[in-house]
Amino acid sequence: MGNNYGIGLDYGTNSVRAVIVNTANGEEIATSVWNYPHGEAGIILDAKDPNLARQHPQDYLDGAEAVIRDALSTAAETPGFSPEQIIGVGVDTTGSTPMPVAADGTPLAFTDAYRNHPAAMAWLWKDHTSATEAEEITAHARTHRPQFLAKCGGIYSSEWFWSKILRCRRAAKEVFDAAFTWIEIADWIPAVLCGIANPADVKRGVCAAGHKAMFHRDWGGYPDTEFLSGLDPELARVRASLPDTTYTVDQAAGTLSDEWAKRTGLRAGIPVAVGAFDAHLGGVGSGIKPGVLVKILGTSTCDMMVVPEATPPADIPGLCGIVPGSILPGYYGLEAGQSAVGDIFNWMVNSIKPGGAEAGSHEALTREAEKLVPGQSGLLGLDWHNGNRTVLVDVRLTGTLLGMTLYTRPAEIYRALVESTAFGARVIMERFEEYGQAVTEIVNCGGISVKNPMVMQIYADIMNRPLKIARSTQTPAVGSAMAGAVVAGKAAGGHDGFDAAIAAMTGTLDRVFTPIPENARVYERLYRLYRRVHDAFGVKGSSDDLSDVMKELIAIRAEARATG
Amino acid sequence: MGNNYGIGLDYGTNSVRAVIVNTANGEEIATSVWNYPHGEAGIILDAKDPNLARQHPQDYLDGAEAVIRDALSTAAETPGFSPEQIIGVGVDTTGSTPMPVAADGTPLAFTDAYRNHPAAMAWLWKDHTSATEAEEITAHARTHRPQFLAKCGGIYSSEWFWSKILRCRRAAKEVFDAAFTWIEIADWIPAVLCGIANPADVKRGVCAAGHKAMFHRDWGGYPDTEFLSGLDPELARVRASLPDTTYTVDQAAGTLSDEWAKRTGLRAGIPVAVGAFDAHLGGVGSGIKPGVLVKILGTSTCDMMVVPEATPPADIPGLCGIVPGSILPGYYGLEAGQSAVGDIFNWMVNSIKPGGAEAGSHEALTREAEKLVPGQSGLLGLDWHNGNRTVLVDVRLTGTLLGMTLYTRPAEIYRALVESTAFGARVIMERFEEYGQAVTEIVNCGGISVKNPMVMQIYADIMNRPLKIARSTQTPAVGSAMAGAVVAGKAAGGHDGFDAAIAAMTGTLDRVFTPIPENARVYERLYRLYRRVHDAFGVKGSSDDLSDVMKELIAIRAEARATG
Repeated sequence: MGNNYGIGLDYGTNSVRAVIVNTANGEEIATSVWNYPHGEAGIILDAKDPNLARQHPQDYLDGAEAVIRDALSTAAETPGFSPEQIIGVGVDTTGSTPMPVAADGTPLAFTDAYRNHPAAMAWLWKDHTSATEAEEITAHARTHRPQFLAKCGGIYSSEWFWSKILRCRRAAKEVFDAAFTWIEIADWIPAVLCGIANPADVKRGVCAAGHKAMFHRDWGGYPDTEFLSGLDPELARVRASLPDTTYTVDQAAGTLSDEWAKRTGLRAGIPVAVGAFDAHLGGVGSGIKPGVLVKILGTSTCDMMVVPEATPPADIPGLCGIVPGSILPGYYGLEAGQSAVGDIFNWMVNSIKPGGAEAGSHEALTREAEKLVPGQSGLLGLDWHNGNRTVLVDVRLTGTLLGMTLYTRPAEIYRALVESTAFGARVIMERFEEYGQAVTEIVNCGGISVKNPMVMQIYADIMNRPLKIARSTQTPAVGSAMAGAVVAGKAAGGHDGFDAAIAAMTGTLDRVFTPIPENARVYERLYRLYRRVHDAFGVKGSSDDLSDVMKELIAIRAEARATG
Repeated sequence: MGNNYGIGLDYGTNSVRAVIVNTANGEEIATSVWNYPHGEAGIILDAKDPNLARQHPQDYLDGAEAVIRDALSTAAETPGFSPEQIIGVGVDTTGSTPMPVAADGTPLAFTDAYRNHPAAMAWLWKDHTSATEAEEITAHARTHRPQFLAKCGGIYSSEWFWSKILRCRRAAKEVFDAAFTWIEIADWIPAVLCGIANPADVKRGVCAAGHKAMFHRDWGGYPDTEFLSGLDPELARVRASLPDTTYTVDQAAGTLSDEWAKRTGLRAGIPVAVGAFDAHLGGVGSGIKPGVLVKILGTSTCDMMVVPEATPPADIPGLCGIVPGSILPGYYGLEAGQSAVGDIFNWMVNSIKPGGAEAGSHEALTREAEKLVPGQSGLLGLDWHNGNRTVLVDVRLTGTLLGMTLYTRPAEIYRALVESTAFGARVIMERFEEYGQAVTEIVNCGGISVKNPMVMQIYADIMNRPLKIARSTQTPAVGSAMAGAVVAGKAAGGHDGFDAAIAAMTGTLDRVFTPIPENARVYERLYRLYRRVHDAFGVKGSSDDLSDVMKELIAIRAEARATG
């Protein structure tokens, strides 16, 4: 019997990627990436409103065709490969990225009336036009449905489903009125591939619904009409368009339509998995299972764990979401994250540009920062340049740097920024453990995990845990391909469930970053200071005496310099 | 009757300057500057010890000859000028900069035995080799003579007289043993000009003795032998070499010797005033009087006031010194200061170099920072990159910046650094006022006051006071020339006292920086936040809830952007 493959489609912020993965061993035999042509790097902006970020759904369709065709043509170089061997399709996307569609399922962006209307496009996850609406929803829920907030960390975000719909109602009434319903692109793209147009037939994934749209089985699905009407009576109409049921990624959204088989070269009739968010399928592609913390380290981070449904986790304060089935079927998906990590390092390089472009590159700063030992700079930072997502859930917190002297150099600041994000990562890990979710293994993926060993060593030293790196550099796309293999099933050459798929198709690199004891000891002291400053500025009602913090930093610095 | 002139010699860190000033109107008819040739920019360093900073006294003598001759040759271009019209000499220097001398008054650096020994040189004010000794002296005084500390802000500094002598005792015993006594260069240079060698005949100024050597009439002069012996028995010998009396700058150290008249071209026999520190005579040259706060704005600042001896000030916690006669005879001299101001801006430009050399110059950053309105950046800094001299008197405090986001730009940081130093300046002003010294007028001098109008406007807005600028750009040298005019006396064409000299020879520029009410209003709010963070990190026992600070900065930022 020959090889079998799943194909994963990974819709990122600026481009879409396809990867073809061997279901038996996870080998990635072909990859293709296609940049969205609309707007700037795929994002439709508004010069008058820096918060606006939209995408044109045409890019998703053109992109699917382009990357699948291109990946197939690369795969053809593998001896014995045939497109017939691809047994299933999986899809992951950014989110919450909802889009208004007409009653017949046509995205409004495809209609003559709204072809160029920004509100008719997909509202990209990072669209922040809905800040006011998010505050309104949070306040309303706090009063009337506190249980809604308990599952999403206590605050409903401007990046999420209902904030965006309410914003559209307020700012672009004509589009709101023309929309029959709103669909996350994670749900819409699989439906399109299966030729499903009628919104009632679109299978919505629990990942998007649960993490971003307040869907939870505890209260019978999406938020009730009374709650939504309290925000705006017309939301009742949107609520009525939504189903009672959502699906997990081991279920098929449908099967590949003839049209899309023709467009792509894939076999018609193969199953297409229900869609999910990139981070969550990235967790799957990294081999997530109970006890494993998967960290996606990129411009921001996503920190995920799964907990068997048999032993429901407590509500964990500050977590972005606790959703049954959002990562793996049969498990609660727990999602935390840092709202800026790589973005903070990029800010230093691209906005501060210390010493000019060459002297201030990531490479140059890393080269110098590597020569420092923990504590040597005397610096301590708070990694809040884009607010704090977990555990404080507060966008109005800001980046801070303590300990500067007239001798402080850019590489010291760069290292302190890296360290501050690692301290933030440790806070998240400890929060999981404080609420009973022991972290027995940490698997990292995402750009930083493979690009910057200094960062990984600092993370290992500060978290004081060995850090593994996922074998694949495109774990979301691999996770999607795995979903394709699971919906195809073992009989078709795939897998009967994710346990088997994970065992066969994922793995970690040989290189493990292990804590260096003397570094960990110093960082333990610095972490205690971080935690105190973190709480002082981040937690209402704190009343710590911070007058020893700077002196302690100097004492640690003196010891570091004496031994370093 | 023709014009009369005083000549002032101003010994700085890297060079000596002479200025010839008309006693009737303060006109500066000639200036000359000479760079010390020894070491690096006049400072003898030690590659093995970054704390070491010494100077060779030969530079002081060669420099006096060079600048006086050169200034006289420039003055000769003034119609009617003759060297005979110079009626008195004044001298100011850095300090505490003490030097070991033999029993015959010869500096050990001029003897064959110690010609190249760094400990035999002048120990420059910024020499920090004596940190341990300073702590020892502070601890000893705290236990046995708390009154000594009350007059110098509560902590005896490593930059000061006894710290350096004790350090020499410990680190260079042979030099300590060879020294009969130690003399501040502020006292030694006037003595040399007058041909006075015998240490017993050298008139020591109260400025150096009072601010740096714990001299105070309340306890009969220099610290008692018992106290010093407790630190080291051999200090008793140094104590025995010191006089009981010190002098103010309206008194003559002597008259110009024939030798120095010949070397310089000045008239032999004209009086030479007792020496003082550059900052203090800078205060005089800025027109200091009761109610006037004189601020010298340079790499660091010196903030001075005078209080009539008839109404002695309370001990003011955190002030560097309260010394009768140290600035003006008949008045207490009050000295405060910020340990880094221009140095912090220089750090940003020279060490961080945002955007590279050109984009990150003071001019470029100022150009961008000027376009911002108060509060717009959302940033708040603590100006402690070199510790805090007043009012916290703590070298172990460090620079801090709050409020950074992914959008923070270098010019915003630059402006926030400027603002942080202005907040620090306001703390000092308020400390004077809290202890009964009303500030009715503020006169600024020093490089920044004339070079950067943006900085001055920010200071005016933050201190919420009109800020005047001294007319002269070389106020210490002018103050020294004024001392020369006063020791000469009215009958000789000078002045009978500093009141008259100040009225005749000093003034301020027409341009006054006046607070802009809307800026002052915003800065009032930011200052309250600064003060809270200042106290939280700087004052033991503080227990403020800081969790609203970042949010308040964001609220102020939002308002600034809406109106700005």
